[in-house]
Amino acid sequence: MNSSNKTHILLVETEARKNLSHELSSVLYRHNLEIISNRDFITRDDNIYFKRSEFSGITNDDEYVKILCDLYLVLTENAKVQLIEKEKKRVVVFCTKEHHCLGDLLIRNAYEDFNAEILAVISNWDSLAPLVEKFDLPFHHISHEGKSREEHEKEIIDVVYQYNPEYLVLAKYMRILTPQFVSKYPNRIINIHHSFLPAFIGANPYRQAYERGVKIIGATAHFVTDELDEGPIIKQDVVHIDHRKTPAEMSHMGHELERMLLAHALELAFEDRIFVTGNKTIIFD
Amino acid sequence: MNSSNKTHILLVETEARKNLSHELSSVLYRHNLEIISNRDFITRDDNIYFKRSEFSGITNDDEYVKILCDLYLVLTENAKVQLIEKEKKRVVVFCTKEHHCLGDLLIRNAYEDFNAEILAVISNWDSLAPLVEKFDLPFHHISHEGKSREEHEKEIIDVVYQYNPEYLVLAKYMRILTPQFVSKYPNRIINIHHSFLPAFIGANPYRQAYERGVKIIGATAHFVTDELDEGPIIKQDVVHIDHRKTPAEMSHMGHELERMLLAHALELAFEDRIFVTGNKTIIFD
Amino acid sequence: MNSSNKTHILLVETEARKNLSHELSSVLYRHNLEIISNRDFITRDDNIYFKRSEFSGITNDDEYVKILCDLYLVLTENAKVQLIEKEKKRVVVFCTKEHHCLGDLLIRNAYEDFNAEILAVISNWDSLAPLVEKFDLPFHHISHEGKSREEHEKEIIDVVYQYNPEYLVLAKYMRILTPQFVSKYPNRIINIHHSFLPAFIGANPYRQAYERGVKIIGATAHFVTDELDEGPIIKQDVVHIDHRKTPAEMSHMGHELERMLLAHALELAFEDRIFVTGNKTIIFD
Amino acid sequence: MNSSNKTHILLVETEARKNLSHELSSVLYRHNLEIISNRDFITRDDNIYFKRSEFSGITNDDEYVKILCDLYLVLTENAKVQLIEKEKKRVVVFCTKEHHCLGDLLIRNAYEDFNAEILAVISNWDSLAPLVEKFDLPFHHISHEGKSREEHEKEIIDVVYQYNPEYLVLAKYMRILTPQFVSKYPNRIINIHHSFLPAFIGANPYRQAYERGVKIIGATAHFVTDELDEGPIIKQDVVHIDHRKTPAEMSHMGHELERMLLAHALELAFEDRIFVTGNKTIIFD
Repeated sequence: MNSSNKTHILLVETEARKNLSHELSSVLYRHNLEIISNRDFITRDDNIYFKRSEFSGITNDDEYVKILCDLYLVLTENAKVQLIEKEKKRVVVFCTKEHHCLGDLLIRNAYEDFNAEILAVISNWDSLAPLVEKFDLPFHHISHEGKSREEHEKEIIDVVYQYNPEYLVLAKYMRILTPQFVSKYPNRIINIHHSFLPAFIGANPYRQAYERGVKIIGATAHFVTDELDEGPIIKQDVVHIDHRKTPAEMSHMGHELERMLLAHALELAFEDRIFVTGNKTIIFD
Repeated sequence: MNSSNKTHILLVETEARKNLSHELSSVLYRHNLEIISNRDFITRDDNIYFKRSEFSGITNDDEYVKILCDLYLVLTENAKVQLIEKEKKRVVVFCTKEHHCLGDLLIRNAYEDFNAEILAVISNWDSLAPLVEKFDLPFHHISHEGKSREEHEKEIIDVVYQYNPEYLVLAKYMRILTPQFVSKYPNRIINIHHSFLPAFIGANPYRQAYERGVKIIGATAHFVTDELDEGPIIKQDVVHIDHRKTPAEMSHMGHELERMLLAHALELAFEDRIFVTGNKTIIFD
Repeated sequence: MNSSNKTHILLVETEARKNLSHELSSVLYRHNLEIISNRDFITRDDNIYFKRSEFSGITNDDEYVKILCDLYLVLTENAKVQLIEKEKKRVVVFCTKEHHCLGDLLIRNAYEDFNAEILAVISNWDSLAPLVEKFDLPFHHISHEGKSREEHEKEIIDVVYQYNPEYLVLAKYMRILTPQFVSKYPNRIINIHHSFLPAFIGANPYRQAYERGVKIIGATAHFVTDELDEGPIIKQDVVHIDHRKTPAEMSHMGHELERMLLAHALELAFEDRIFVTGNKTIIFD
Repeated sequence: MNSSNKTHILLVETEARKNLSHELSSVLYRHNLEIISNRDFITRDDNIYFKRSEFSGITNDDEYVKILCDLYLVLTENAKVQLIEKEKKRVVVFCTKEHHCLGDLLIRNAYEDFNAEILAVISNWDSLAPLVEKFDLPFHHISHEGKSREEHEKEIIDVVYQYNPEYLVLAKYMRILTPQFVSKYPNRIINIHHSFLPAFIGANPYRQAYERGVKIIGATAHFVTDELDEGPIIKQDVVHIDHRKTPAEMSHMGHELERMLLAHALELAFEDRIFVTGNKTIIFD
């Protein structure tokens, strides 16, 4: 940790107070760090202060510790502070049968387009094994058939723990996770949902969109929480349709959105650009 | 009606059957009409055929009647057929206090940007009277205060009937219409709703969007039906936002969408480009 | 100037150097001002620092002067500093025959949607006089016919000077301004161009777009400089088209973009959110 | 060819004349075919008629020939008519060093997302060989080094001819093809260009866009003709940027557009939905 020429990211979340921003930047200033970018925000509703600074110039562990101490001197006890060395995030991907998001992630991983490394792919179905194996990554087929949700998740967790991942990515994983599972990776499980949330929560959103006769369909990348389809939203986008589109065609168009949005959301997450507060995200892009 | 050099629009809605499209166009062909555009569509779910043809060449009333007769010869009894001379639609606009949609419509009306003529503006509030009067249009202030919904609507209807309008446009009219009122203008009342329906139905959609932390806000132009915010959708669009936007700023951005979408939806309606089937629209743009 | 409860905007443009941002914010900190927003940026190519801070708390002229002095203490001599009280900008609008942008601006002006006040409208044609007069604003018809460009501009300048405007807005003004004219209002003349610059520079961009068979048309709001269609770009947007669109229909669709983009660009300008550097803009929105 | 249950596509391009559309559809009507979709268009400038009909019901070769004969009876001698059985197009992909478009096409090919089959990949560089080989497709490294353009193309043509492809796809192939080469595949070579054409023709479009300070960057999928970057445009799209984006970041954002647009354009081409007329496309999507 903390060699020279490394980039570090400081993340602060705490109660806002006057001049806090200035005092925090004074710490970085005194330590003579090279600021690459700096963003902050105060929530209106509950007055919480969020800061992300990216900088270089920490050359050894002593300095790292001193900076942290100096930051704590201007912060209250319950402030959340992270001082992270910028390194590839460790990621496990979940999928079921659809290949479009997974395929895109495998290509990006192979060419290091992301600040992340995919360690393994887990699926409740085996059909995507050949795709994953092309890229020389472990594929774990953990069928849910004949098992309770808890039994199934226990098997999954045993595999996940082997890899010690920082993020779990649900790349069209079509199973609902239990609160017990979700609680192990708070704000660390990212899902791509096939609708413009909060419209068309639940199953078959394209069928729902077709029935309602909407003129736009969308997709949403979000963190997974206990409440299905209610987690903090990271990114959303839409595409215009007309009356000629069948649910199948809407689904096809939706896949393009899903592929693109999941990749964008992961880019943000893997660079520590997302804070979660309550049920919302603050994104310093 | 039916002088030479006029454009006519044929609208057909009927049960689909093989070769119907060909037989209908044979009628137009035999009458030697000049087709300007022709569009048709068959619904998948209930096999209904919709056709819109725009053409010139009807030079007198006899010919108009003969064409209609010939069309009926290839159609079943319960087919809906309209053969419309293209003329400016007669329109009454409703508003409350917000000026952004009304102002836009008044400018477009003054310069004949639309295939329509605004005959009058009705409001349950008097604050927009000066704006309407700048454009030398009648402004009817019909307050709802101290009246039952039925009493208020009765007063409105008395005024509306004076103008014999084909369309009622709700340009940010913040009152809910009763089913009795709506039934008098089926698929003839167009509203602009301040959200991307079906998300955020009901009051305060920007506050709802803010609370949910969405990354996109939208607006929806739709026909009014008995079910609040459930009518057939004509046009929708969205704009991207981030965590910094307050509900007030979201509302400001939403106004831009509302202004633009209402104008686009009206353009389509006033040129007879919209069919309504069940709760959906078919739009031949 | 400088009463209490007023908002001020600080604009700084100077050579970048280490810790400058921190030292400038220290000045605001020491004067105990309430920061509303703060943004800065350093250009990569020529290392220029730009800062915009919006804050309240200056209660009298003495304090205003002291803050300025303290800011100059940390800045070099050739730094450009403005400390502006937030007040409605004084604006003169130019037009020719097209009403769509002008009409939109008049509505927004009437309802104070902008941080600006339109003082007068100048046109080389008289057809929009009735529209302007509806809004009780002076309309100056200054025909260019039978005059040299210099003679025409001299007449215009005489009228413009009466109003002492901060911004000139070209709302579809179809005459080219001379460098002499432009030099009187550097980065203060805003134009809406009917194409996605730098594509289709010059006359008839929709015809050019039609000939080239593009699938997107656009519009561009920009500052006017000596080079036609080459000034710093403020905002651009596009709309998708297909092969069916005629140049006239493309123009109609383009008008919607123009109206919206000009309004957005003016919103940014009138709140002092735009810096111009070389031929580019830096926008703190 | 022409077995039962097959879908056929009729493409007609000829001088427009009155009732032609009706007479052509009469032919399909008499042969009792099941029309799936039907689109036509007449160019305004040179009065050329284009028709695409998709239908089923041709059960044997005799019928296929009779339909063609009947079509020719209502068409003039120089009409261009194609009656195509819908089958996967044979495709050869060209690339250089960038993986983002190629990777996307390989995934889509592996899962038959397209109405096409990639037969081989040709590159003037060898770095993408491992990616192609993961998908068990032939990769031909044909270096251009030390060869004249003609020599290099001769080697390429020898390889291409082995595969007898219907389409060549330039998936970020960074070499200019000679008119001799292009003439062998008229309207059959599809390129993805990294700008919103006609803006920023030529090399380094992102650098050009950065220098000009545009607020939108784009990409363009087009057919290749003799004139560099001047071929008929199939699809274009854009993404908004601000002053903070470096040319490298713009390029990264552009890659997302390129990947998506190339895929969409190929979808259209592989289903015979694109006509080329002069330097424009007519697309029946």
